[in-house]
Amino acid sequence: MTRILFYLEDYSHDIWREAVRRVDPSVEFRSHPDWGSPDDGPAYAFVWEPEPGLLARYSNIKAIFSLGAGVDHLTRDPDLPKDVPIIRMGDDGLKEGMAEFVTMSVLMHQRGMPALLAKQRSKDWGRFFARAAKDTRVGILGFGALGQVSAQALLPFGYDIAAWSRTEKPEYQGISLYHGADSLNTFLARTDILVGLLPSTPETSGLMNFDRLSHLPEGASIVNAGRGSLIVLDDLMSLLTSGYLSGATLDVFPEEPLAKDHALWGLDNVIITPHIAAITRPDTAAEYVLRNIEKLERGETAENQLDMKRGY
Amino acid sequence: MTRILFYLEDYSHDIWREAVRRVDPSVEFRSHPDWGSPDDGPAYAFVWEPEPGLLARYSNIKAIFSLGAGVDHLTRDPDLPKDVPIIRMGDDGLKEGMAEFVTMSVLMHQRGMPALLAKQRSKDWGRFFARAAKDTRVGILGFGALGQVSAQALLPFGYDIAAWSRTEKPEYQGISLYHGADSLNTFLARTDILVGLLPSTPETSGLMNFDRLSHLPEGASIVNAGRGSLIVLDDLMSLLTSGYLSGATLDVFPEEPLAKDHALWGLDNVIITPHIAAITRPDTAAEYVLRNIEKLERGETAENQLDMKRGY
Repeated sequence: MTRILFYLEDYSHDIWREAVRRVDPSVEFRSHPDWGSPDDGPAYAFVWEPEPGLLARYSNIKAIFSLGAGVDHLTRDPDLPKDVPIIRMGDDGLKEGMAEFVTMSVLMHQRGMPALLAKQRSKDWGRFFARAAKDTRVGILGFGALGQVSAQALLPFGYDIAAWSRTEKPEYQGISLYHGADSLNTFLARTDILVGLLPSTPETSGLMNFDRLSHLPEGASIVNAGRGSLIVLDDLMSLLTSGYLSGATLDVFPEEPLAKDHALWGLDNVIITPHIAAITRPDTAAEYVLRNIEKLERGETAENQLDMKRGY
Repeated sequence: MTRILFYLEDYSHDIWREAVRRVDPSVEFRSHPDWGSPDDGPAYAFVWEPEPGLLARYSNIKAIFSLGAGVDHLTRDPDLPKDVPIIRMGDDGLKEGMAEFVTMSVLMHQRGMPALLAKQRSKDWGRFFARAAKDTRVGILGFGALGQVSAQALLPFGYDIAAWSRTEKPEYQGISLYHGADSLNTFLARTDILVGLLPSTPETSGLMNFDRLSHLPEGASIVNAGRGSLIVLDDLMSLLTSGYLSGATLDVFPEEPLAKDHALWGLDNVIITPHIAAITRPDTAAEYVLRNIEKLERGETAENQLDMKRGY
């Protein structure tokens, strides 16, 4: 019998319990705060933003599954158990959602939607002549699973696509690959629409500051769907206000929800979405978690198991 | 030597002259009003919204090329020459532009962007749980060249896609086909996001009235990127205001530009774009026109030559 300890604030747990039971009715699904005692026997944690210290108190936890692709909500807990595998969410629903969001946002920037939406607000019938997709250079910053499905979704439109990753990745049909800090500015200089999909690590935090952003060509725009810590928000705002950058779609922020009095809300060329680019879907996520619990039980490594040295 | 008589109000003709000359430097490109005399010898008209009666005065015109996919700007001229072939624009730029716009708009409705954009205006961090693409039924109303490229672009996202056309079309991989007036309500009843791509003809004018729109399921949304005459705007507005329909993206209107005092501007769940879904691109259009002039000179039928009986 598999035991799951589930943690998710603010949302109903029923939909998750049902999704897990549909895959395997024998699972014992314990919803926080009813996690019982550590002496009840081995269990797997399946959590989002658990209160710091909570996981450390359950010595029966054999592995921790994150409800999302990000794991910074776990790694920021100073008491996080050190010898327990941590597994990022990698279900198909998450990948599909990201491919949809990135494609939608890139199309919106190519087709001038931020400017057209602003014109609509002033009841102004204005024209916008879009650049052809083949003349639009998309740059994907972070080329893991989510970066790759996003690139794959964009390819049929004929965009000129490059991707940057911290470490070298295998060749990918139709995409120009860059890697390492030394090539980042070159990658930025050839990018009209930058798609941020980097994980949150000490190296990526504040990576896109005024200097880095200024390596983008004038008129470039930005889609950030990875982690809010990637971008120095004040630097981005001054480049958007000066008109050097033409627009941005931001789904993630250093602090969420974005404060009601934040100046970003008032910028005409910014589209703000409430961290919905890729939302984990209960049905596909339940399959993913139970499949990977089986792998761990067999002594194998799980899919998307955290590499603690890289931090993601 | 090929002679082209060009007509386009409000925009510079130079970009068009240059595009045509890049394909064939020997073309004589005459820009309105400098069309010369009908006695100057055979010529091809390449026009958008020419003043009524103008084409009739040039008996040397051997064929008329429309600068866009629509030809209602020609057929409404009571003096339009009867025995001259009329050719709709079918360049790749137009098709690519439509595939981009339709994909962007369908993704925006699936992902709840009209509601999220409204929340952004009130600085409100609100969540929206999107339906999965596979559970979202897209219905393409009009399955000609533009309908087909749009469907093709949507397929990789996994939408459940159907298409309706007036006359029967050959099978199309992955798309459920409906045709004829009798099946229209059945097609509408299974459609969550309706994409209007019908040409403007007496049969399509006002086709989507209150009764037809009410066959869509509650919560459906509409993207109209074909012709404004398709939809009875007052009927659509009352269904959007009542909340029966959840949103609309409208690129075309019965009268353009949309009047500044039109109530549509004020609707929160409507995205208005200024007839930019598919804009003819000079480079690809010039190739298309010159390729089809050669076909006509060889005595062949041109691509997308108008069938006057159907009216498009």
